[in-house]
Amino acid sequence: MSVESAIPETMTAVAISAPGGPRVLRPEKRAVPVPAEGEILIRVRAAGVNRPDVQQRKGAYPPPPGASDLPGLEVAGDVAATGNGVERWRAGDQVCALAAGGGYAEYVVVHGTNALPVPHGFTHTEAAALPETFFTVWHNVFQRGGLAPGETLLVHGGSSGIGTTAIQLASAFGSKVIATAGSAEKCAVCVKLGAERAVNYREEDFVVAVKDATGGKGADVILDMVGGDYVARNYAAAAVDGRIVQIATQGGAVASTDFARLMVKRLTHTGSTLRPRTVGFKGELAAALEARVWPLLAMRRIGPVLDMIFPLEQAWRAHERMEAGEHIGKIVLDVA
Amino acid sequence: MSVESAIPETMTAVAISAPGGPRVLRPEKRAVPVPAEGEILIRVRAAGVNRPDVQQRKGAYPPPPGASDLPGLEVAGDVAATGNGVERWRAGDQVCALAAGGGYAEYVVVHGTNALPVPHGFTHTEAAALPETFFTVWHNVFQRGGLAPGETLLVHGGSSGIGTTAIQLASAFGSKVIATAGSAEKCAVCVKLGAERAVNYREEDFVVAVKDATGGKGADVILDMVGGDYVARNYAAAAVDGRIVQIATQGGAVASTDFARLMVKRLTHTGSTLRPRTVGFKGELAAALEARVWPLLAMRRIGPVLDMIFPLEQAWRAHERMEAGEHIGKIVLDVA
Repeated sequence: MSVESAIPETMTAVAISAPGGPRVLRPEKRAVPVPAEGEILIRVRAAGVNRPDVQQRKGAYPPPPGASDLPGLEVAGDVAATGNGVERWRAGDQVCALAAGGGYAEYVVVHGTNALPVPHGFTHTEAAALPETFFTVWHNVFQRGGLAPGETLLVHGGSSGIGTTAIQLASAFGSKVIATAGSAEKCAVCVKLGAERAVNYREEDFVVAVKDATGGKGADVILDMVGGDYVARNYAAAAVDGRIVQIATQGGAVASTDFARLMVKRLTHTGSTLRPRTVGFKGELAAALEARVWPLLAMRRIGPVLDMIFPLEQAWRAHERMEAGEHIGKIVLDVA
Repeated sequence: MSVESAIPETMTAVAISAPGGPRVLRPEKRAVPVPAEGEILIRVRAAGVNRPDVQQRKGAYPPPPGASDLPGLEVAGDVAATGNGVERWRAGDQVCALAAGGGYAEYVVVHGTNALPVPHGFTHTEAAALPETFFTVWHNVFQRGGLAPGETLLVHGGSSGIGTTAIQLASAFGSKVIATAGSAEKCAVCVKLGAERAVNYREEDFVVAVKDATGGKGADVILDMVGGDYVARNYAAAAVDGRIVQIATQGGAVASTDFARLMVKRLTHTGSTLRPRTVGFKGELAAALEARVWPLLAMRRIGPVLDMIFPLEQAWRAHERMEAGEHIGKIVLDVA
């Protein structure tokens, strides 16, 4: 293990003291983790907050085997130490990374291939807001959904962290974007980020709006985190040969739909979750992002949309805000 | 147009005199069709009977725009005449072909690219049993489902025309096959054709059987024509990263299932129907089949499973038999 400066033995981390509401998130003293072969230890400066953290806090989404019990799936900070076999990073490097857990802490270990350089000119707060949504959108919209230039993407939850990332990436790569969101303010953000059309789902039927905006053709790719009655409506809003990618089922997992429509329209309904994937898979995603997307970030052609920043110790407030659903873009914890 | 021998002006065809039961299928005199540019006129010797013909007879599956109102989606016979621009075929050539309709007749026109040579040594009856199931299985199992050597295919309706073709093709290309069927006799046929395990769905839960036969892993590809409550059970029987391909919904189109399972297992649920595809698409499929599958037919490594043969005029009996569900393999009309 290569170390630059003194690393303490203990650190402050925010743990889930028991399954429950936001207030179960409590600061604790924990041992600083030690990087194994291929891993790096990051001195965390900022950590992103994501919906799976909320699920984990409620006890509904247990960490995968071997992962930290602490919440937190993405961080930015300085490399503090490197395990054997890590060639790319040295102590002091500024990185942002996908973590298998443990991000709500002063130190976290991640696999070296799952880290990326902080884009030029980005703050730690901005950089910590990147990994989860960019890894998720790149894989689900472009790799799994196969969105091509000129095609139309329908993205639900357009003002969420995932939504704001999907709108920007799809627009940057030459697709037309239609987004749904729950207020006029959120819709305005979607349009500002590049959506050609934003649908306030409280006032308008997105199926009608999508048909209208595509000359009756429908959306080629749909990114959905709602499920429930959206499944049948997504099948209706999709174009022939359309792809629907499910990344959450916040509106209900079990739903009824017409599979003859899936067949006759030759739809492809698929989905995935990021956390259980192998470090190797995440490393390949990181390499693709660094090649294709990191240059756009450095040029500020796209960037994270930040909602609010809370101190690490007040992670419970971050969860309260996420559960209230009023946020636009990413909620981040400051760990400096 | 190039013609070898005298072609009559009228022919016998079996038409749908009105939507209804098998007896609405009645012989009629019709004008012999004339091949347009790129098309060939086939003197039909045998015609395959398929489930979409039954649906069309009932009025539930209207022919696509421009197609013949006569039933019949596949034939074998002699090329009687060729339209302008047809280079490959000459009058007298023995072909089998996918038709957009009109196969229940003494003559039919098809696009030249949608015809294939009768495999060496095959009778017309055997050759007429090939196009629908081989085009359907090749596209849905291999192209759409991406079945790879070493993977496991679960095929429902294993003793049907589609099922017997899927079992043989998947086995020939190095996959392990599990089939479901509704009787011990049908299960025995599935095993004889290459299925490693046949599940009598009246006596056994296929989900349990598939898990058992794959060491708990599940099926990599599932070919389903049932739908209804099979959808949720297919999601349960599928392996992680599994693909489910829907080619009919005979058990009901609208069904409820758990889409969190689709997401967590990273399933891909897709489907298609063959008839509305373009002649260009069907031509590409024909070329792939001729290169990859026709040699296996000529070697008799695989072949059609024939159930019963009825004279053209008794097409109604063929439909009765198909609707009774007792058949094993293909039902064919003799038009000689």
